Amino acid sequence: MNNIQSYIKENKERFLNELIELLKIPSISADSAYRNDVLKTAEAIKVSLEEAGCDIVEICKTDGYPVVYGEKIIDKNLPTILVYGHYDVQPPDPLDLWNSPPFEPIIKKTKSHPEGAIYARGACDDKGQMYMHVKAMEFMTSTNQLPCNVKFMIEGEEEVGSANLATFVKNNQDKLKNDVILISDTGMIAQDVPSITTGLRGLSYVEVEVTGPNRDLHSGLYGGAVANPINVLTKMIASLHDENNHITIPGFYDKVEELSKEERAEMAKAPFNLDHYKKALDINDIYGETGYTTNERNSIRPTLDVNGIWGGYTGEGAKTVIASKAYAKISMRLVPHQDWEDITQLFKNHFESIAPKGVTIKVKPHHGGQGYVTPINSIGYQAASKAYQDTFGKTPIPQRSGGSIPIVSLFEQELKSKTILMGFGLDSDAIHSPNEHFGIFNYLKGIETIPLFYKYFTELSK
Amino acid sequence: MNNIQSYIKENKERFLNELIELLKIPSISADSAYRNDVLKTAEAIKVSLEEAGCDIVEICKTDGYPVVYGEKIIDKNLPTILVYGHYDVQPPDPLDLWNSPPFEPIIKKTKSHPEGAIYARGACDDKGQMYMHVKAMEFMTSTNQLPCNVKFMIEGEEEVGSANLATFVKNNQDKLKNDVILISDTGMIAQDVPSITTGLRGLSYVEVEVTGPNRDLHSGLYGGAVANPINVLTKMIASLHDENNHITIPGFYDKVEELSKEERAEMAKAPFNLDHYKKALDINDIYGETGYTTNERNSIRPTLDVNGIWGGYTGEGAKTVIASKAYAKISMRLVPHQDWEDITQLFKNHFESIAPKGVTIKVKPHHGGQGYVTPINSIGYQAASKAYQDTFGKTPIPQRSGGSIPIVSLFEQELKSKTILMGFGLDSDAIHSPNEHFGIFNYLKGIETIPLFYKYFTELSK
Repeated sequence: MNNIQSYIKENKERFLNELIELLKIPSISADSAYRNDVLKTAEAIKVSLEEAGCDIVEICKTDGYPVVYGEKIIDKNLPTILVYGHYDVQPPDPLDLWNSPPFEPIIKKTKSHPEGAIYARGACDDKGQMYMHVKAMEFMTSTNQLPCNVKFMIEGEEEVGSANLATFVKNNQDKLKNDVILISDTGMIAQDVPSITTGLRGLSYVEVEVTGPNRDLHSGLYGGAVANPINVLTKMIASLHDENNHITIPGFYDKVEELSKEERAEMAKAPFNLDHYKKALDINDIYGETGYTTNERNSIRPTLDVNGIWGGYTGEGAKTVIASKAYAKISMRLVPHQDWEDITQLFKNHFESIAPKGVTIKVKPHHGGQGYVTPINSIGYQAASKAYQDTFGKTPIPQRSGGSIPIVSLFEQELKSKTILMGFGLDSDAIHSPNEHFGIFNYLKGIETIPLFYKYFTELSK
Repeated sequence: MNNIQSYIKENKERFLNELIELLKIPSISADSAYRNDVLKTAEAIKVSLEEAGCDIVEICKTDGYPVVYGEKIIDKNLPTILVYGHYDVQPPDPLDLWNSPPFEPIIKKTKSHPEGAIYARGACDDKGQMYMHVKAMEFMTSTNQLPCNVKFMIEGEEEVGSANLATFVKNNQDKLKNDVILISDTGMIAQDVPSITTGLRGLSYVEVEVTGPNRDLHSGLYGGAVANPINVLTKMIASLHDENNHITIPGFYDKVEELSKEERAEMAKAPFNLDHYKKALDINDIYGETGYTTNERNSIRPTLDVNGIWGGYTGEGAKTVIASKAYAKISMRLVPHQDWEDITQLFKNHFESIAPKGVTIKVKPHHGGQGYVTPINSIGYQAASKAYQDTFGKTPIPQRSGGSIPIVSLFEQELKSKTILMGFGLDSDAIHSPNEHFGIFNYLKGIETIPLFYKYFTELSK
């Protein structure tokens, strides 16, 4: 690819400003109050794909938020790359922990981002990383260097489980036909340690409701005599882990892939500094499943975490009440071979079975997805590896991520093609947290690396 | 007392309308947003005491909300009754469970209140029961039948632990000097089963905070590798009860008064129907400490209940986050001889000691109070018993209540006098809950019974 660095240099300000405009729209898919903003974001993506040189761009209706589809087919005999990304973002709460408003992007220099980073919800996950592909496309089309066919599928429901994407993919297999799927929605180890994500965890997300008495009760008159839904919920949740932090749901580990000594030794080579890790989080110690390292706990092992809990009086002051109901949102990260629907059912059966008399339980599955592993000997992985070597001057490290992109395994199943996860964010970019940000270095490095993937993938496919 | 029934009959509508006006003011002491309403309520109480015939009425400043004091001294040689009540109310949340707005009182007929009940926050606890004493006073003064001296002490911080009342009482011992204290802030067993509360539980109310990582984290990237404050909080709270629902805090039971077989047999005589109890609460079973009956569990045994819990994402939809912090409000009901400050310290020490590495704990004591027992052979109890016999035609049953009125033991300590708890509410009146109400029968029965207590107490004191 000729002149890519100079092209980026000349257009840097515009690339930043275009992303900043996109980040100003609060496309929170989890909260229906933002419906119009989510739809407005889809429109903006459509326009940006047209300007980037796509011949066809469509906003495709679904039962939820639409999928923005774009394509440029230059030669049916050349390979086709399908780019996936999402234009929706996580809710910004807790708002009071943001140093600047989540939808008023600002650029700040930080220790890990000396060249500056854009602070805004969605900066890294995934508007910033998705938009790298739009700008890479612009470069290739405007300089007549597009080496193959391209398709874009940018959805608006990733943060709420891509509920309608499965149907869209199933109904559009020809339209989405491709030779490799390219996604930037993961991270890399460090600015000078590029990595490619080769594994993702699956996910099962449920909401539970414990109901005791039919109304809130005075804790003096009834305390000790009736089941307190909050006390019961804490007991039930606590029982889901044993003293070694193994999950106690019967059958939960049955299909878990056990890695060999060799594979675990290979993983252990990834740079990791426990003191830095603890310091970065202000924790005095790590915590997790006995017998596994931190890197293993958050990548090759399944987990169960409460993501939210609420019940009773949570306002100012004191209220001596026994709540009628208590709630929790619970998610389980799954590893390859664990089927998320089986696990959801196992959780439901177990959770209902451990409820004491005096309360009734509701378990409402939210959404989920399968885990995924991509082989490093594939053409796609090789092309990505060469691209990073050109732009970073080093071979990227293959890395298992603890995160989940539920639709990746769906793509393989429905479209019969592998996904390459070229992530340019850092773990410290605080995605899903207050003060999410994305490094300018990372943003531009992505725009520079992506066209090289196109080049090498086309060459290796010959 | 002559003509009391006819007086009540003639003035019934006015008695109801005056109470309804008082209930319209949202005097929520726990929420500073209602500060002006709480103060406005104090003014209204002052006016009502003046109109009821008090010679002196003052609004006495404290470091919190004021105490309304009133008195009528007719003869220094006659006994003096001190009436205590409170004009503040509990927060009304959850608002969506109210069938009518909590501060727009309406009268509805129900199964347990065929003559109608007033629905509003504070209707029973304690505006309605406190106002019975004001109207009883009005009757006695306007018909020249007041048999002794009266003092009123109506506070505005009972629902938040009467933080400033102790100082007020200590600083005004002469002003508050009395022979017996009379309070209506408890309940009776049933419309046709009058009862007098002879025991109250103490209270220790604390708020706990568990802090893990310094920011909310992505549950995929960090799940399983760091302590999740919500998971940890549930484990810690769950561990506070053993499999028999005994509280596990070391030393918690050391000073608990163990009742004799005989005393427990006496208690067991109080009418109780388990099926009705379960049906009234829509629960399929009761729950509590092994080895004790329902009536014992909520009266003579101490308890530990979570009154509120919150942390992480509690909004619509799903957010895969590990929260930085999790919180709970926890209250312990105590029995006679358990010192609330000792218990608060025991809780704090224990809760901090069971925190795992990887989190930090804060325990913030909110407030508390001692338990109390009144002897049934006292003049005060005898006078109350005779009053109920006149108006209900039966001897009231002495009853231990599970509730707490922290200042009762303070009164005994500082003012050296016993408290008589003449409660006219029903357990089903939903105090502290949505749709709190107070029966018109109960309201008028209270106004009718109270003057007779004055009469008999004065006679028995000779």
